[in-house]
Amino acid sequence: MAHDAPVSPLAPKTTPKVGAVEGVRFATAEAGIRYKGRTDVLLLALDEGTTVAGVFTKSKCPSAPVEWCRANLPKGTARALVVNSGNANAFTGAKGREATALTAKIAAKALGCGEDEIYLASTGVIGEPLDATKYEGVLDETATRLAPLPWIDPARAIMTTDTFPKLATATVKIEGVPVTIAGIAKGAGMIAPDMATMLSFVFTDAAIAAPALQALLSKGVTDSFNAVTIDGDTSTSDTLMLFATGAAAKHGAPVINDAKDPRLSRFRRALTGVLADLTEQVARDGEGARKLVRIHVTGATSKKSARRIAMSIANSPLVKTAVAGEDANWGRIVMAVGKAGEPAERDRLSISFGGIRVAHEGARDPAYDEAETSAYMKNDVIDITVDIGLGRGTDRVMTCDLTKEYVAINGDYRS
Amino acid sequence: MAHDAPVSPLAPKTTPKVGAVEGVRFATAEAGIRYKGRTDVLLLALDEGTTVAGVFTKSKCPSAPVEWCRANLPKGTARALVVNSGNANAFTGAKGREATALTAKIAAKALGCGEDEIYLASTGVIGEPLDATKYEGVLDETATRLAPLPWIDPARAIMTTDTFPKLATATVKIEGVPVTIAGIAKGAGMIAPDMATMLSFVFTDAAIAAPALQALLSKGVTDSFNAVTIDGDTSTSDTLMLFATGAAAKHGAPVINDAKDPRLSRFRRALTGVLADLTEQVARDGEGARKLVRIHVTGATSKKSARRIAMSIANSPLVKTAVAGEDANWGRIVMAVGKAGEPAERDRLSISFGGIRVAHEGARDPAYDEAETSAYMKNDVIDITVDIGLGRGTDRVMTCDLTKEYVAINGDYRS
Repeated sequence: MAHDAPVSPLAPKTTPKVGAVEGVRFATAEAGIRYKGRTDVLLLALDEGTTVAGVFTKSKCPSAPVEWCRANLPKGTARALVVNSGNANAFTGAKGREATALTAKIAAKALGCGEDEIYLASTGVIGEPLDATKYEGVLDETATRLAPLPWIDPARAIMTTDTFPKLATATVKIEGVPVTIAGIAKGAGMIAPDMATMLSFVFTDAAIAAPALQALLSKGVTDSFNAVTIDGDTSTSDTLMLFATGAAAKHGAPVINDAKDPRLSRFRRALTGVLADLTEQVARDGEGARKLVRIHVTGATSKKSARRIAMSIANSPLVKTAVAGEDANWGRIVMAVGKAGEPAERDRLSISFGGIRVAHEGARDPAYDEAETSAYMKNDVIDITVDIGLGRGTDRVMTCDLTKEYVAINGDYRS
Repeated sequence: MAHDAPVSPLAPKTTPKVGAVEGVRFATAEAGIRYKGRTDVLLLALDEGTTVAGVFTKSKCPSAPVEWCRANLPKGTARALVVNSGNANAFTGAKGREATALTAKIAAKALGCGEDEIYLASTGVIGEPLDATKYEGVLDETATRLAPLPWIDPARAIMTTDTFPKLATATVKIEGVPVTIAGIAKGAGMIAPDMATMLSFVFTDAAIAAPALQALLSKGVTDSFNAVTIDGDTSTSDTLMLFATGAAAKHGAPVINDAKDPRLSRFRRALTGVLADLTEQVARDGEGARKLVRIHVTGATSKKSARRIAMSIANSPLVKTAVAGEDANWGRIVMAVGKAGEPAERDRLSISFGGIRVAHEGARDPAYDEAETSAYMKNDVIDITVDIGLGRGTDRVMTCDLTKEYVAINGDYRS
């Protein structure tokens, strides 16, 4: 149903050209996990020496693949990533663990590596056992077709309710040696009774030790994937992984062991940019989204406080429906600030839509021009700025509007 | 717009007959606060000796009337309640404080009592100054028409986007003397650009000292008004007040100074019942609601933990849209349990819709009959039970489904 949905009106106008990352090859296949005749598995092989970092859902009820990845991560090396759509292998009990073990066994045999160097992600229906025997033969055959390009293939293979594939890339130099970062993501969409998920995988040929890679990723996620919300709901399967093949070392790039190494400064910025780019694409493809909404909070008592206030606004159904209705309803912003539970004083609040200040010092801005604001609200991208007026804490989060289409997609109206 | 909405399909079939509460008289009027020709103010007079208790929004940006009530509450006595609709007097800065002071002055003059014995509540548009001079003359005239019945009048006067008036009552004996409890409420509805609010006022002729009354109300609210959510948004104006005129003392009822007094045991239960009844009516009149949803959590590590898990489920847009679609989507329940952040173990979870167990010990219940569950989901009232399997903490919260109508009501689609 949502697979036939038109491409989001907020989709980027062009798909970025993403180059090969030395040490990374991939192929996709039809394993028939849930439906026949549909690409539903991605096999991605990584050269020996690849390091790995990961950030996963905070859900107390994670999927079996999330538990599998968490268990392998301390080893710090990776040789393959297997992602399927159609079945999330979540809430599948002991059978779920057996399915991850069998998938890893089949992939390890196909690629000739250790099972504990295989990383897994699954997205799709929840609570249904995943029949991993379907991978037998399929992954062997897929392994014969591995290629370093085109990135659009894996980007498409991991889509579920996404209306466009999500890719981002950057090239920077480390000590004069060019390295590439390439990332793919699938968005936060749902199609009943499937539970979709945010998955993102980022690859680089830089040579970075696993602990440093983990530190880079954990920091990079703060203002990207952790600063986006579609509906406040958290999947049991959210997975973000960063793989570094180290192939650039062959061309003279240094092996970096410390995330704070000054030689990484450009790389850090580039990685942050790729993560932020993918995050914005996820927000632009939120279910039913017609507007991208950026919430900027300034003047909070701390960044943490600013984040909580921003998330309270971004998750408010009343704020999101107002944006859908192109209504600069600042009363609902006040409401959402008030319910956040963070330090705020009504009579110090200022609220702007775009650059137009609508409220100031606890009351409507006398200069507020409703016609100008209404015109602004017709834009595709809406910036809402709230100044708390108490301190120096700032933050920004991204979300989308809440439309009838969201309810239609997730309501699975059977009647 | 929503004022023309049809009565909620979940409305009670009959309106309860509510008797007079000795010491309470009221009348309504048209003050023209926002619209002409519409009843928009309730003046309710309380006999001398009336004690008062209140519970208010936790918002950090409360309305001026909420601040006014909070300031007066320590005095513990009340002579009048003035409620208007059309303007919430919220986020109105210094002008908001002036408006509450002027309203109280006019009401005190009309009734011949102290200004600090006047309680105020406002609901309607936010951020617009409330012109309290409109009460001049109006409240004087209204005070000449005060009568102890019918309760439907105040119940209707405080409505905004409610589709039916909300009343509840109980009669119990304290030491053999009958006392009455009568309550009215308005629901959690919104109509752009108005911010509606949950207001509830409960009255009794029992003779209960203010501190004891406050203790009764604070306890009573835990499993009623604090256990209901429509969309997770919190008004700047939520107000629940309990007034005790003490008139029953003239008929021999004791004056009670301690909330734990055993002579109050029946009264406590009756008060809890009235609050729970009003709460359920609010949930049944949630904007766009087509189903009342009761979330029962058992086996949590504590009641507090059970409450957080229940609220995580009740506020999940994905759970609420699934119920709207008559889909027993237990995967989304697992998701909402997982994101609550409370102790939970996937492999101990059980989930039931009605009496039908759909998931057990971390996987789909093998005996689960989809046809039977689908038939159950067609009901108006849906009970979802989640057993966490870890402890003895239980809780129950109420909500409603999330429909396209909710988005339509709050989206104010201008295009």
